[in-house]
Amino acid sequence: MFEARLVQGNLLKKVLESLKDLLSEATWDAADSGITLQAMDNSHVSLVSVSLRAEGFDKFRCDRQLSLGMNLTSMAKILKCASNNDVITLKAQDMSPDSVSFVFESPNGDHVSDYEMKLMNLDAEHLGIPDTDYAAVARMPSTEFSRVVKDLSQFGESLLICVTKEGVKFSSAGDIGVGNIKLAQTASVDKEDEAVSVEMQEPVSLTFACNYLNMFTKATCLSPRVTLSMSPDVPLVVEYAIGDIGHIRYYLAPKIEDDDS
Amino acid sequence: MFEARLVQGNLLKKVLESLKDLLSEATWDAADSGITLQAMDNSHVSLVSVSLRAEGFDKFRCDRQLSLGMNLTSMAKILKCASNNDVITLKAQDMSPDSVSFVFESPNGDHVSDYEMKLMNLDAEHLGIPDTDYAAVARMPSTEFSRVVKDLSQFGESLLICVTKEGVKFSSAGDIGVGNIKLAQTASVDKEDEAVSVEMQEPVSLTFACNYLNMFTKATCLSPRVTLSMSPDVPLVVEYAIGDIGHIRYYLAPKIEDDDS
Amino acid sequence: MFEARLVQGNLLKKVLESLKDLLSEATWDAADSGITLQAMDNSHVSLVSVSLRAEGFDKFRCDRQLSLGMNLTSMAKILKCASNNDVITLKAQDMSPDSVSFVFESPNGDHVSDYEMKLMNLDAEHLGIPDTDYAAVARMPSTEFSRVVKDLSQFGESLLICVTKEGVKFSSAGDIGVGNIKLAQTASVDKEDEAVSVEMQEPVSLTFACNYLNMFTKATCLSPRVTLSMSPDVPLVVEYAIGDIGHIRYYLAPKIEDDDS
Repeated sequence: MFEARLVQGNLLKKVLESLKDLLSEATWDAADSGITLQAMDNSHVSLVSVSLRAEGFDKFRCDRQLSLGMNLTSMAKILKCASNNDVITLKAQDMSPDSVSFVFESPNGDHVSDYEMKLMNLDAEHLGIPDTDYAAVARMPSTEFSRVVKDLSQFGESLLICVTKEGVKFSSAGDIGVGNIKLAQTASVDKEDEAVSVEMQEPVSLTFACNYLNMFTKATCLSPRVTLSMSPDVPLVVEYAIGDIGHIRYYLAPKIEDDDS
Repeated sequence: MFEARLVQGNLLKKVLESLKDLLSEATWDAADSGITLQAMDNSHVSLVSVSLRAEGFDKFRCDRQLSLGMNLTSMAKILKCASNNDVITLKAQDMSPDSVSFVFESPNGDHVSDYEMKLMNLDAEHLGIPDTDYAAVARMPSTEFSRVVKDLSQFGESLLICVTKEGVKFSSAGDIGVGNIKLAQTASVDKEDEAVSVEMQEPVSLTFACNYLNMFTKATCLSPRVTLSMSPDVPLVVEYAIGDIGHIRYYLAPKIEDDDS
Repeated sequence: MFEARLVQGNLLKKVLESLKDLLSEATWDAADSGITLQAMDNSHVSLVSVSLRAEGFDKFRCDRQLSLGMNLTSMAKILKCASNNDVITLKAQDMSPDSVSFVFESPNGDHVSDYEMKLMNLDAEHLGIPDTDYAAVARMPSTEFSRVVKDLSQFGESLLICVTKEGVKFSSAGDIGVGNIKLAQTASVDKEDEAVSVEMQEPVSLTFACNYLNMFTKATCLSPRVTLSMSPDVPLVVEYAIGDIGHIRYYLAPKIEDDDS
């Protein structure tokens, strides 16, 4: 039997908001250590990985490993029916289940909804993601990153991200003109959530497709902070924490520099 | 002469919001007891009935019975020009008037607008609505009912409503899956507006078209509470109070159960 | 060298919001007295004039007169990238510059963006606007004027504005019916921003095209007050202050009265 109960159910709502533009369907893997998802986006360019630890749930039981193929558009619709303060429980049968149940309970228990969704048979393709020591890691407010990507997307299709010990610089160019946004590394901050910090072995400058970065920033609702990890010639990692129970990571390969940026 | 003055003019604005999606035109009947409207919706499936008592108005005079055929889309446009705290006065001539006046006054009197709207000649078809003793009557917060109808409309075109002494259960099914929402009858409540209560002679289960229920919930703005009255084989009544001055009632026949629900 | 620094940068954002629906491109003239813009709207019906005084800026330097032809749609996009509390600096080279720079600095200096925009070669056509003594000048809350224009635009394409010593009356007529809104001149007011006042030598009644008035009211964001100046047979002037640093004026010729109003 598989059963996972999360009092802070709105985290699950937000995870789906963070996924549904990028992925229309995907397989959730449940094991006794927790729930994970790993998938290429619909156009097979970027990779998304979600991890929700068993200990993060208020109740978690998974007797056997299960692969639950779901239509994420439908799952997002169902989760939208949960109120923000509802307790959410996921349930599935043990042996090759053909459906999954979502139960939403209001805190006082007077309002209970349950939804049953058919599962799908999806090809699972697990890509090993190698552990990498990144040359530069920048941490910043997630709303700031979201704003920068949105602003500079107006100017061009590509965003150049440069991390140096001074801070992070984002640049874009196109028909309208050229835009640069510099976030200085904050020396000391009163509010930790507002800090911009850089850890680096060497400065890194890489160019990425704006439309994917924009889809990644859908996860801004999950966490006040975002981490960008970069090394030359390897995919950028954009990571958001999911409360105390896990994280979502987006991977995107840099563009080969040519004359258009 | 006909003149009706309402200090709480925003009630009238909300009545029009509750009607205009369902009815594009209808006849308002003015008499010395008040103003009423009764009409089938545009597609002749559901019935709407509005009653505004003369005593509820701050000034009310109606020397002769009048039938005022109005384009409700135009009337809604005009009422949107009233501010929420404007005093609204309706006026018409006594003998077969061909137009009606709306006067909006700001509380301090510095801002006065008047609108004159042409009347229409509409066939009046008064259906007698028999007084019925309903087998089950459920009362609940209007926002909760609105939410339930909206959420479950995503799953299917029909909504099954079951009233039992435990409470009210709503169900819907479709391609995505199956959804059920249970509102338990509240034992005791601190906030009366949030209670779910059931009065019943026998449990009732009936199925209704979601699109009509969704249009009825436009009246959620009128009242924090809604009453659903049901008996087997007779139309459901969805009723909202209009402040202290009247009510709006929507009638919808149940679907004949077949294999699609 | 041209450099203009404005701590209250959001004023510039609002100026662009007030212009961009009316003008897609225009020439800004910079001189040591300040920055001005004067242009016919895209359909060559109304005239817009903006004046920003040098003393209003926190730093202002303009060594030579410059004509800076700009695509206002692009300029509005760039200014949208400034936060509301950013300090904005405009810069251009001295001799026939081919681009202009916008620098946005957050108050604490940690967030700096700069945008460079190509300039355009535009035909400058300076119309002399004669100084006129207007027969009637009405001042009122800008939100009230905006609301009146929006409400009455629903009824007809033309708005009749009558200024008398009692106050200002706006009227419109069309298929739905007739609408009149009267704003009484306020005798004495507690809140100066809410006053309606009239200064007049003679009553004036003129008719104007609603769609242009609606575009002018985009400047409502700039100032809590608006001034309407009218004389028979000359263009109406709709004026809004731009903080303490200047003003925006819209000019619109009255419609020749015919049977349609």
